[in-house]
Amino acid sequence: MTYEQLFGQIQKKRSFLCVGLDTDLDKIPAHLLLEDDPVFAFNRAVVDATLPFAVAYKPNLAFYEVLGAKGWESLRKTVAYLRSKSADVFIIADAKRGDIGNTSEMYARTFFEQLEVDAVTLSPYMGQDTVVPFLQFQDKWAVLLALTSNSSAADFQYFEGKNGRLLYENVLRLSQQWGTADQLMYVVGATRAQELTRVRKLVPAHFLLVPGVGAQGGSLEEVARYGMNDRCGLLVNSSRGILYASSGKDFAEKAGEAAALLQRQMAQLLAQHGLVSDNA
Amino acid sequence: MTYEQLFGQIQKKRSFLCVGLDTDLDKIPAHLLLEDDPVFAFNRAVVDATLPFAVAYKPNLAFYEVLGAKGWESLRKTVAYLRSKSADVFIIADAKRGDIGNTSEMYARTFFEQLEVDAVTLSPYMGQDTVVPFLQFQDKWAVLLALTSNSSAADFQYFEGKNGRLLYENVLRLSQQWGTADQLMYVVGATRAQELTRVRKLVPAHFLLVPGVGAQGGSLEEVARYGMNDRCGLLVNSSRGILYASSGKDFAEKAGEAAALLQRQMAQLLAQHGLVSDNA
Repeated sequence: MTYEQLFGQIQKKRSFLCVGLDTDLDKIPAHLLLEDDPVFAFNRAVVDATLPFAVAYKPNLAFYEVLGAKGWESLRKTVAYLRSKSADVFIIADAKRGDIGNTSEMYARTFFEQLEVDAVTLSPYMGQDTVVPFLQFQDKWAVLLALTSNSSAADFQYFEGKNGRLLYENVLRLSQQWGTADQLMYVVGATRAQELTRVRKLVPAHFLLVPGVGAQGGSLEEVARYGMNDRCGLLVNSSRGILYASSGKDFAEKAGEAAALLQRQMAQLLAQHGLVSDNA
Repeated sequence: MTYEQLFGQIQKKRSFLCVGLDTDLDKIPAHLLLEDDPVFAFNRAVVDATLPFAVAYKPNLAFYEVLGAKGWESLRKTVAYLRSKSADVFIIADAKRGDIGNTSEMYARTFFEQLEVDAVTLSPYMGQDTVVPFLQFQDKWAVLLALTSNSSAADFQYFEGKNGRLLYENVLRLSQQWGTADQLMYVVGATRAQELTRVRKLVPAHFLLVPGVGAQGGSLEEVARYGMNDRCGLLVNSSRGILYASSGKDFAEKAGEAAALLQRQMAQLLAQHGLVSDNA
């Protein structure tokens, strides 16, 4: 999927919502546990309820790997189901991989050829080798961790260089030599919304994948104020606030309502920035 | 497995060899492709041939994930087979994971409870949250990337702080506050053997997992000279040099010979450092 196609979906749905599929057997409604594949049954219902309001989905690999081979099968079915419902949905494997070149090639094949997602999150610690194999695939994306939403992000991401630059700023600067804004996105946590001003100085054009709205305390308005660019340039992720809006049989309905609420806020923010017309 | 138990195995086998199970369907002998599970068939034969000479095995997750659910099953069977052959073998899932706390908990459960390996490699980029969930498991290990063996390791790992310290040194310093030398190891590439002197100043007691000997060009002698401590403190990994020593029907025999050759060099180095007697 290209940048323009993704921006087109954002304008069409008046939304830059990414639904994080952190599907946890301990949290999904009990009646689903009787299903043959409870994780897929849950995801399918959530997708059906939220697809009008979301442009992207982000399965978190940890939640599938914990179930072993069965979890991989649930993930594969979820991606295939998303594709069957919409050719235009953007799917991000939240895997945070990062390894030497020959291993990164394997991961790229796994995610882009086997699983057929659009994007994979990557950790920059091992440098360019980690990322380049993912950039060889047409219209696919590497989403590089820059400034994450967790409390210990500061441990190393704020490590200050002798040039006064922080490590995460160095990641943003250097990685732009590896690929374009049509191939690379960055993870910037919503819990650090005001840092988005610094981020946007370094990467004005790139899409940012922004986790941390909702359960982790980030503000959607602040993210848009400091992070939105002239083609939106934002995918804001919500996981728990949507998936577990209800623990009862109405979980999908409530997930849809939670996604719709975020979509309405996003439509307003897009209109305020002149990226969609005011008439919903 | 405890530090002392691992050192005991090293003394018993006179070896600090870790065999990297980067099992690639494109590289294993063609006759194995007729097997129901070629990856497991290959691994089983390699384990049988190398177990007298190796104290640790390190399956690289990328090579299993590329095969989807079937790959996870091959991995599970490989770990179970290793355990059935030797209760004392140290198994490292080379996964290079790293995520926020609740996700890291999931990964820790995956690797320590489901797969039952001893250790997992982790990327430090997201800080303490990433690592702590792995330290909650008795006698299990987190293996943190510090200085990796790939050419682009320098991109960020050598990022120089205003205090003159490099990022990887900061990783070594800060992470010691999170856990002990009985819980944490570090990845330090053999291609940077002379850096081991700097590493050992910061982490004199910790085990180092050292990839990059062989195909990547690192020297075993240099690794031992600069990195060995008074309880060995080294696990040196070889993957391609053992697995693909032959592409014919004699692959297991040749893998065993390659492992035996490394073991003999290791026995000498251990003896030179006074960690085993000279009489093999």
